[in-house]
Amino acid sequence: MDRITILETKERILAEQNADGNKLRGELTDRRVFFVNVMASPGAGKTTLLVRTIRALTEQGYRVGVMEADVDSAVDAETVRRETQARVIQLHTGGSCHMDADMTARGIDRFGIEDLDVLFLENVGNLVCPAEFDVGAHLKVMLLSVPEGDDKPLKYPLMFEVSDILLINKIDTAPVFDFDFAACEERARKRNPEMEIHRLSALTGDGFDSWVAALTDRIRAFQAETAHQ
Amino acid sequence: MDRITILETKERILAEQNADGNKLRGELTDRRVFFVNVMASPGAGKTTLLVRTIRALTEQGYRVGVMEADVDSAVDAETVRRETQARVIQLHTGGSCHMDADMTARGIDRFGIEDLDVLFLENVGNLVCPAEFDVGAHLKVMLLSVPEGDDKPLKYPLMFEVSDILLINKIDTAPVFDFDFAACEERARKRNPEMEIHRLSALTGDGFDSWVAALTDRIRAFQAETAHQ
Repeated sequence: MDRITILETKERILAEQNADGNKLRGELTDRRVFFVNVMASPGAGKTTLLVRTIRALTEQGYRVGVMEADVDSAVDAETVRRETQARVIQLHTGGSCHMDADMTARGIDRFGIEDLDVLFLENVGNLVCPAEFDVGAHLKVMLLSVPEGDDKPLKYPLMFEVSDILLINKIDTAPVFDFDFAACEERARKRNPEMEIHRLSALTGDGFDSWVAALTDRIRAFQAETAHQ
Repeated sequence: MDRITILETKERILAEQNADGNKLRGELTDRRVFFVNVMASPGAGKTTLLVRTIRALTEQGYRVGVMEADVDSAVDAETVRRETQARVIQLHTGGSCHMDADMTARGIDRFGIEDLDVLFLENVGNLVCPAEFDVGAHLKVMLLSVPEGDDKPLKYPLMFEVSDILLINKIDTAPVFDFDFAACEERARKRNPEMEIHRLSALTGDGFDSWVAALTDRIRAFQAETAHQ
C-alpha cells in the first residue's frame, strides 16, 4: 500500500493556545463554575445528550448554563431552551470550525456566569479541529455515535487523545449497524489509556445513570476543591 | 433568544485558493481525467459509497483511481483496494482538517493519473473546513447520512452551498431515526437551489442506480467535451 504524508504535522501554536486555556480555566475555577467542553461529529447527538444531562443536574439542584456554538443557525439553543430550565446562549463562530479560548472567553463575558454551578459548551460539530484548541474547560467530553462506526479512533486520533470521557451514543440503534464496541473501546484506549468510557443512548436514556453519576462526582469534587478559595 | 456572533465571517483567502483550484482543474481537463471531490461528516459512509460506485463504473469499463485523505490510518485505502479494482493511494494530511488544491496536486503528482478516466478524492471527514477549499474537482459530491439528522443544512450551510450533488445516505436506517426527507431537501435547496439530490443506501444499494446514472452522464459529457482538445 502506497502511503504518503502530504503535510508534515503542522507546527502548532498550541503553547500559546494552552496559555489562554489555562488562564480561562483558572478564572472559572476562581468563580467556582465547572466548565465542560462537549465535542463530536455533526449529528452525533450532542444536543440530545445535553438536554437529558441538564435535566438530571437540575433535578439535583445544580444551576446550569449552556453556550451553543455553531457556524450558523440557533436550532440547538432553541432546543435546549425549550426542553430544559438552563440558561442558554447561541454563539455563531462566523464560519470557524471550532471554538478557541479567546472566543470562549468573549462568549462567557457576554453570557454572564455569576449564577451558575455548571457551564457547558456545545462545540462545533467536528471531530478534527476542536481537538486542537484548549477552551479552558475542566472536563472534555466527546461523543461518538454508533452510526459513525467503530474505526473513528484510528482516523481522528487527537480527539480521542485529548478527551477525558468518551460517550458512545445511540446504542439503541446498534441492531441496525455493524459496530464492534470492544474493538472501538480498545482503539480509543490505545490513543488514551486514561479515557473513561460510557455506552448510552441520549434518546432513550439507556446507560445514562452511570454517565450522570460520573459527571456529578466530578462536579462535587470540583466544588469541594474550590470551597475554601 | 440571545445570539451573538463571536467572529465576523473570517476574511478568506478564497481568491487565491480558487486560482489554485482552477489551475489544477484545467490541467486535469487537459489530461481528460474527471475529478470528483467527495465530502461528508466522519462516518457518513464515504468509503462504502465509493466502493459500490467504483464497482459500477468499472463494470462500464471506466478506469478509476482513488485518493483517500485522512488525518491518520490507512483503513479506507485498504478497504477500497480490497473491495475494488481501482488503484488507490492513502494521503495523510498531517493533522490538517481538509485538503486544498496544493496538497491535492502533490498527491496527484505522486499517484500518477495517466491511466485513469475518473479520479475520486475522499476528503477528510468534516462538514466545515473542506467546503472552503477548491481542490480542483470537476464535481463536488457531499453525503449526509440519515443518522446525522435533517437539520444539517441549517448548521453547515457552506457545504450545502458549494456541493453539486447531495446524496442522502443510509436510507435503510430511516425506520430507527426521526429524519424528515422533505424538510432536509427543502433546507438544502434553500442553500443551493441548483443542488441535485439522491436518496440511497450505499450499504444495500437501494437508490443507487439513479446516482450512478447521474454520475455516468457527467463523465460522458466531460469526455465528449474534451474529446477534441
